Amino acid sequence: MFGLKKLGLAPALAVGLGLAMSVPAAAQQKILKIQASWPLSSTQYDNLVDLAKRMDQVTSGRVKIEPMPAGQVVPPFEVLDATHKKVIDGAHSWPGYWVGKNKAAILFSGGPGGPWGMDHIDFLGWMWHGGGLDMFHKFYRETLKLNVIAFPVLTASPQAVGWFKKPIESLADFKGQKCRQTGIAAEIYSEMGMRTVNMPGGEIMPAAERGTIDCAEWVGGIEDLRFGFHTLWKYHYAPSLHESVSFAELQINTEVWESLLPADREAFKAVITEQLFFWWTRWQSQNADAVAEFRDKHKINLLNPPAELAKEFLAAWDRVAARESEKNPVFKAVVESQKKYAERVVPMRRFYFPNYSVAADHYWPTK
Amino acid sequence: MFGLKKLGLAPALAVGLGLAMSVPAAAQQKILKIQASWPLSSTQYDNLVDLAKRMDQVTSGRVKIEPMPAGQVVPPFEVLDATHKKVIDGAHSWPGYWVGKNKAAILFSGGPGGPWGMDHIDFLGWMWHGGGLDMFHKFYRETLKLNVIAFPVLTASPQAVGWFKKPIESLADFKGQKCRQTGIAAEIYSEMGMRTVNMPGGEIMPAAERGTIDCAEWVGGIEDLRFGFHTLWKYHYAPSLHESVSFAELQINTEVWESLLPADREAFKAVITEQLFFWWTRWQSQNADAVAEFRDKHKINLLNPPAELAKEFLAAWDRVAARESEKNPVFKAVVESQKKYAERVVPMRRFYFPNYSVAADHYWPTK
Repeated sequence: MFGLKKLGLAPALAVGLGLAMSVPAAAQQKILKIQASWPLSSTQYDNLVDLAKRMDQVTSGRVKIEPMPAGQVVPPFEVLDATHKKVIDGAHSWPGYWVGKNKAAILFSGGPGGPWGMDHIDFLGWMWHGGGLDMFHKFYRETLKLNVIAFPVLTASPQAVGWFKKPIESLADFKGQKCRQTGIAAEIYSEMGMRTVNMPGGEIMPAAERGTIDCAEWVGGIEDLRFGFHTLWKYHYAPSLHESVSFAELQINTEVWESLLPADREAFKAVITEQLFFWWTRWQSQNADAVAEFRDKHKINLLNPPAELAKEFLAAWDRVAARESEKNPVFKAVVESQKKYAERVVPMRRFYFPNYSVAADHYWPTK
Repeated sequence: MFGLKKLGLAPALAVGLGLAMSVPAAAQQKILKIQASWPLSSTQYDNLVDLAKRMDQVTSGRVKIEPMPAGQVVPPFEVLDATHKKVIDGAHSWPGYWVGKNKAAILFSGGPGGPWGMDHIDFLGWMWHGGGLDMFHKFYRETLKLNVIAFPVLTASPQAVGWFKKPIESLADFKGQKCRQTGIAAEIYSEMGMRTVNMPGGEIMPAAERGTIDCAEWVGGIEDLRFGFHTLWKYHYAPSLHESVSFAELQINTEVWESLLPADREAFKAVITEQLFFWWTRWQSQNADAVAEFRDKHKINLLNPPAELAKEFLAAWDRVAARESEKNPVFKAVVESQKKYAERVVPMRRFYFPNYSVAADHYWPTK
């Protein structure tokens, strides 16, 4: 974190360097170096750039964010430790990356199957009104003993089942193929008896060309279009429950957070939530264009997996979660808190919310 | 709109009066008198109170909102004209109330059937990325010729079919009952051949006790519990498509809006969207408790209407909308813009989003 004063720049020079659009009292000015776990080309990176723009506007240039892509200071999966050590001021990342430290981390991203039947809005309800955000903060502070505070910042979900060389006729057919899968989803698919392979995004296309894998999970829509999976494979399957609700996080070093003026901390929270929904709705519009391009230009088969996949996946996740709960009290406590919230809210949702398909079938019939 | 300077109050006195928690340069301080179209007891009023609190925090007390319930300065349905004339600085109201000026108003609240199959998130996508917000601003400025700018501020939806004296066995049964209905929904039900009666909320219970009506639409959940419909009627029906997506608005007089510092206007936008989702998720949690209370304490029959109701309702709305489009070019232009957006986004949603019932059935089966 560098203030302009510390850098010894006069306001006029700072403007010349593009560092400040408006220049308030230099003593209060902050520049936060925030590194993402994704490259510049990712749609997720756009969210960090937009956050920087909004914080500049809302605080009259008092708090500036310097967005940095994966690898600029530290490798993508070292951002949490780097934020803790104040090597960077914060990170734009995903709680699911930290399951190696404690598997409860995945639950703060949402998690497989909702979690527990919840959708994005239900999950944020748990975060804001069901004790989730406090548990998330306590998880970093007390469980992982890190000087990090974090907030849900965007949701690039639901994610698709993925891309396949040949069509899936049955669940056995799906299980017989060797897919690239990551994290908790890979663990659940293994629990179901599948062979899965993990590899970084950049290695998927070469592995597919060599025939090492028959299929791959990535994100879906615009992200997959940019990746070019449609040039190799012609079968794209959705929907899936492996990351049906998945929130990324904005992490900030606790000392940096506390060094901000109270009003600027509140502005940060407001802008994070505003941009979460602004980005998500824009992403859905981008995905709509991507789906049309897959279908009309690239003649991709857009298909639904067998219904048994979701059922068996949820049952396998329940077994994985039950085993983890037995040995991990933090995981157990978070699951119980989420289930307590879901048990109240999910049935209410089913009573008051019309099924999406009712009006969709009327206006945009699929057959 | 009164600044402290104009009132001639010294900062210390202002603090003493509870007008300011923190006192920046008095010249920039604004107090905005914003009146709601609902009473203090409405959950919707809570949103205005929370907005006031957040604006105070984020702007360090530079912009304060003085929330006022319905009727404090003008009657509830005169807030739009009062905002235009700067009798009040702004209003917390609902675009659907202005269909008497131009029926296109309902479309800026969302509208029956989504509109066009969209849910809340899709509709906000149209607002933010499909040209909707610009059309909304142009509608007030050029069509209605009002000095008003407005933003979606909360969504108290989906709303229930309502409360009934006896069970609905068929669509004919539903149509045979005389219900309290309002606005565009009343027009659509009339199109379907129903007898409907409009009356203010406060007259519903007396009318029901006199036997003038057999049923009533209000909101659902916590709002209906506070109203006490369950003390009169034992059959509560949901879901419905008459206000499945319905957004309230924050209106501000254009001159007042432009008198705010650019940073404060941006803060206002951020806080409005933040509180929209914060309020909505809290409201859903409140509704979950209300549903449990209806079911367990008051032994209310929580039932779904016949499937034909939704189908016939959408077909009737399509006829009403087609007739209006023929004579109202603004209505036609908004419908076309919404349909163009829905046509792209709704099919994408159906491909990538799992049906809510899949994980809900697994974790919280209804039977």
